[in-house]
Amino acid sequence: MNIVQTTLTRIKPVNPELLAQAQARLDNKTKPLGSLGRLEEFARRVAAISGTMTPDVSKKVVFTFAGDHGIVEEGVSLFPKEVTPQMVFNFLAGGAGVNVLARHVGAEVRVVDVGVDFDFENAAGMIHRKVARGSRNFAKGPAMTRDETLAAMQVGIELAEQCKTEGIGLVGTGEMGIGNTSPSSAIIAAISGIAVRDLTHRGTGINDAALEHKIRVIEQGLALNRPDPADPLDVLAKVGGLEIAAIAGLVLGCAANSIPVVVDGFISTAGALIASELHPYVRDYIFAAHQSVEIGHRFMLERIGTRPILDLDLRLGEGTGAALAMGLIEAGVKVLNEMATFEQAGVSR
Amino acid sequence: MNIVQTTLTRIKPVNPELLAQAQARLDNKTKPLGSLGRLEEFARRVAAISGTMTPDVSKKVVFTFAGDHGIVEEGVSLFPKEVTPQMVFNFLAGGAGVNVLARHVGAEVRVVDVGVDFDFENAAGMIHRKVARGSRNFAKGPAMTRDETLAAMQVGIELAEQCKTEGIGLVGTGEMGIGNTSPSSAIIAAISGIAVRDLTHRGTGINDAALEHKIRVIEQGLALNRPDPADPLDVLAKVGGLEIAAIAGLVLGCAANSIPVVVDGFISTAGALIASELHPYVRDYIFAAHQSVEIGHRFMLERIGTRPILDLDLRLGEGTGAALAMGLIEAGVKVLNEMATFEQAGVSR
Repeated sequence: MNIVQTTLTRIKPVNPELLAQAQARLDNKTKPLGSLGRLEEFARRVAAISGTMTPDVSKKVVFTFAGDHGIVEEGVSLFPKEVTPQMVFNFLAGGAGVNVLARHVGAEVRVVDVGVDFDFENAAGMIHRKVARGSRNFAKGPAMTRDETLAAMQVGIELAEQCKTEGIGLVGTGEMGIGNTSPSSAIIAAISGIAVRDLTHRGTGINDAALEHKIRVIEQGLALNRPDPADPLDVLAKVGGLEIAAIAGLVLGCAANSIPVVVDGFISTAGALIASELHPYVRDYIFAAHQSVEIGHRFMLERIGTRPILDLDLRLGEGTGAALAMGLIEAGVKVLNEMATFEQAGVSR
Repeated sequence: MNIVQTTLTRIKPVNPELLAQAQARLDNKTKPLGSLGRLEEFARRVAAISGTMTPDVSKKVVFTFAGDHGIVEEGVSLFPKEVTPQMVFNFLAGGAGVNVLARHVGAEVRVVDVGVDFDFENAAGMIHRKVARGSRNFAKGPAMTRDETLAAMQVGIELAEQCKTEGIGLVGTGEMGIGNTSPSSAIIAAISGIAVRDLTHRGTGINDAALEHKIRVIEQGLALNRPDPADPLDVLAKVGGLEIAAIAGLVLGCAANSIPVVVDGFISTAGALIASELHPYVRDYIFAAHQSVEIGHRFMLERIGTRPILDLDLRLGEGTGAALAMGLIEAGVKVLNEMATFEQAGVSR
């Protein structure tokens, strides 16, 4: 068995008795029953996932996986490919959106090169796990081999394992990769059978003509590669990307290690969707950070069976939405851990 | 002129040039244009309201105003009136929902007795500004006199003035008052002309029969008092409450002192609605924290002309939603203050 198969065998459903036990504790807090709405859901789920009634999410990490995409040759993106490594250096310097928002919620950003077409040598502060110098152009052939796909997933799985060892209570996903909305649209189209046109948006801000072109390129890639919707790894390999595969691995690894994982926007959700298609209980461990502006995102969330936490018209990626949602999930956990009960506060029921 | 009239004369529209200037700064940050969605709106508005391109919201306060309601005699609430002072003590001890969530976002909670039917003597840690021991039963006559209403508004106005002196960059509203969803429904019904039935929800969790009763009681109060929708102070006095009046005053005071104010849920929004009806530019200073489960809330937000930040099925009040939203607004401000520009990071546009 490869590491993906081994990880899949370790994923168990979240125990419904623990969910009920956590809710009973919430029901003793000084508030009308259920009046903290989704904060109670967050608290209950984190408690049940972590297997403790006093979960600790003080240690939080956002993983920003970087990778390049051969499909950029087709002119699907507004920004040039050089921006991927430039933004990686921005992450390392602490100046990007994800750095600011992760700092704000007390989370660490870990930047992972899983497939950037640039030689970072031994740049400090990053995790060097390059599988290839970008995916290939899926309009002309498969984006990755099956082995590359598994290797990139392994990166995510191993990082999740390490989080377990370090006692990290909450993990967030993020990504950087010029051109990566195209493979994400292709993945959801391949898995759902929904038309590319209904799933494809403007990415970082292309105009009408460029959007038409992007749709045609994705359609061409799907027609050429014929990914098998019953085989999520085939979809991921043929029309996905290295950072998307790493995110799929991270989500599987978190599920296998009982760590709640907060999935960022459109591209991260494409990775989470692959993980969720691979195992029915993965969704028990997923929190969807936000509703992206990207139109295909809603279909992915529905298919996974999860409801987004925030709706702030975000479309940056990097893990920015995940960071914000992690702050709200931690707020829910603090309700469970810190609020007084009716008895403690001497309040009438 | 009374203090409300004086405060109204001080309210100016937010300068659109400052909004544009802040957006121009955001557009230089290392991200696709507009890709941080509403975080950019928060940053832009806070900058323009505060009159600086480097706004400081490190000092944040949530005001939780407490007051009792004569209407509770009619059996409109699930909880007994004694819970109002009991919860005030819970706030002072730091064990309530608003304490936990305010701590989480780095905000201070200030608890203000503006109308609780309980003698707190000189209980430490609270702001003693009692105007009356609760409002009167508006099903039998006016809830407050015009003088009581103005006195309670003055409390809020003066607290906003003090925030300006202290350099507090962001203010949140909150309240505690058993029975206070009924006056809130009555206020929006009186102002909008929408039927009470379409604006009234279960408050802390009453059943169908109790909901029917609550609707009849509110209708009776409106029929008896005939509040004048063209005179927001008349509406507030006849069917409102002391803590709602204090919130209306706080919102006016924040607008007059150029402080962004985050309005919590249903009851707080009733106060903000009165303020907004009194002056057309008040809305420029308001952030709506969240979409409450209470059905009348949507109508209030539409009338004020503001869009809620969160939608987490909250219905606790106290300022809990305001605290969470303040964390997100601060995140937006940090994007403006802390993110690198394209030039600083050496990233291609």
